[in-house]
Amino acid sequence: MSTTAGNASQTMTSTGEMFTLENPVFCCYLFWATVLVVKMNLMSLLTAIQRFRYKIFPNQEDLFFKNLEVKFDDPNVERVRRAHRNDMENILPYFIMSLIYISTNPNADVACNLFRVASVARIIHTLVYAVYPVPQPSRIIAFATMLLITFYMAAVVALRTLNFI
Amino acid sequence: MSTTAGNASQTMTSTGEMFTLENPVFCCYLFWATVLVVKMNLMSLLTAIQRFRYKIFPNQEDLFFKNLEVKFDDPNVERVRRAHRNDMENILPYFIMSLIYISTNPNADVACNLFRVASVARIIHTLVYAVYPVPQPSRIIAFATMLLITFYMAAVVALRTLNFI
Amino acid sequence: MSTTAGNASQTMTSTGEMFTLENPVFCCYLFWATVLVVKMNLMSLLTAIQRFRYKIFPNQEDLFFKNLEVKFDDPNVERVRRAHRNDMENILPYFIMSLIYISTNPNADVACNLFRVASVARIIHTLVYAVYPVPQPSRIIAFATMLLITFYMAAVVALRTLNFI
Repeated sequence: MSTTAGNASQTMTSTGEMFTLENPVFCCYLFWATVLVVKMNLMSLLTAIQRFRYKIFPNQEDLFFKNLEVKFDDPNVERVRRAHRNDMENILPYFIMSLIYISTNPNADVACNLFRVASVARIIHTLVYAVYPVPQPSRIIAFATMLLITFYMAAVVALRTLNFI
Repeated sequence: MSTTAGNASQTMTSTGEMFTLENPVFCCYLFWATVLVVKMNLMSLLTAIQRFRYKIFPNQEDLFFKNLEVKFDDPNVERVRRAHRNDMENILPYFIMSLIYISTNPNADVACNLFRVASVARIIHTLVYAVYPVPQPSRIIAFATMLLITFYMAAVVALRTLNFI
Repeated sequence: MSTTAGNASQTMTSTGEMFTLENPVFCCYLFWATVLVVKMNLMSLLTAIQRFRYKIFPNQEDLFFKNLEVKFDDPNVERVRRAHRNDMENILPYFIMSLIYISTNPNADVACNLFRVASVARIIHTLVYAVYPVPQPSRIIAFATMLLITFYMAAVVALRTLNFI
């Protein structure tokens, strides 16, 4: 496997180019990164829905109904915001980690399946956290899946670039 | 125009390279992404200004004045922090979405104008949220502008890479 | 200097490619971006450790011990979460800024040392904020280091792409 990786690396080194639509690994990244971007932005809309449903607005200028005051700490709104923050903490670093992981020319099947599993895991994370809360450890498992995939990619990239420390 | 785009697409597929200073779309991304990075980092400084003006510090080691205690939930500080968090929720996914959108070789005029409008919209968002609050729907419109542009780019990328699901 | 920059630009234009393992600046970015991604993800685990140590859980389904209620605003947990949020505010824009800075073909020594200093500064920031709080201005200096490096890169990129405004 080490030999294969070495050969593949040499082959790609001559062409050099990883970040094009010619590279199926990059195309797979494009698709699943897009899914996660849309999923994250939908969290903003989910927060807005909760704010209007429970009439909880944090700014004076947002009081769209009469006789309202600014309010914070509503559990229904805060749950969605915690899920959204967790997305930012995990998905945003993953975007960078998985993008630069592509530059190491990983095995296409391994890389694409990592992208798929990580993305589906985060969709499940949102469902069991913000949409329909279910007992643990469902959320912990969904959370750990992307975390471990990020750590795996980090190990691959760091070992490959260790002499540039 | 469709023909031009098609030709350009063919041309670029053969050379393969999108992420260089040769590509005017990438250059336009570079400029406006830089503007947004600086804008986001200025939010940290704006928060710091508010903290010193109203003497609201969240950590024991930050009490730069005598007879102070740690304090939270000051409305002047929290407004800037909400604007900053909203930036992270929207601009950071947009950075990735618009970067990978470039790889689909979009029409240069369309892409550059999307970058310009999205960036200016977020500058307006900051002004009407954190600097000088004005009545709605100004902030909602500024917010929705980048959101819809992100969704448009997501649709372009997802449709182009759908067979890599 | 303008001539030198022009020549360098021409040289790299012919090869075109910055984002490959052939480019030592990109390899150095890969290594230090990976370090920062791992550092950020460890903040999640540090938060979890604090939550279990002080038995502070924000969701009903997280109450792993009997006779517990959901709790917020524990100073030990919130300190780590503030440090984590500060990472998101600063490191995530830096990831994009330093990545696109590479496309301007900067001097290799300058670029690599900026990556190293910025990354080490943020590790120190975490240590003096979340792990073992020490008196100011240690945290402010660590914070300002990456901020100024980001601003420097922003200036380089913006000046280079100013005609694409």
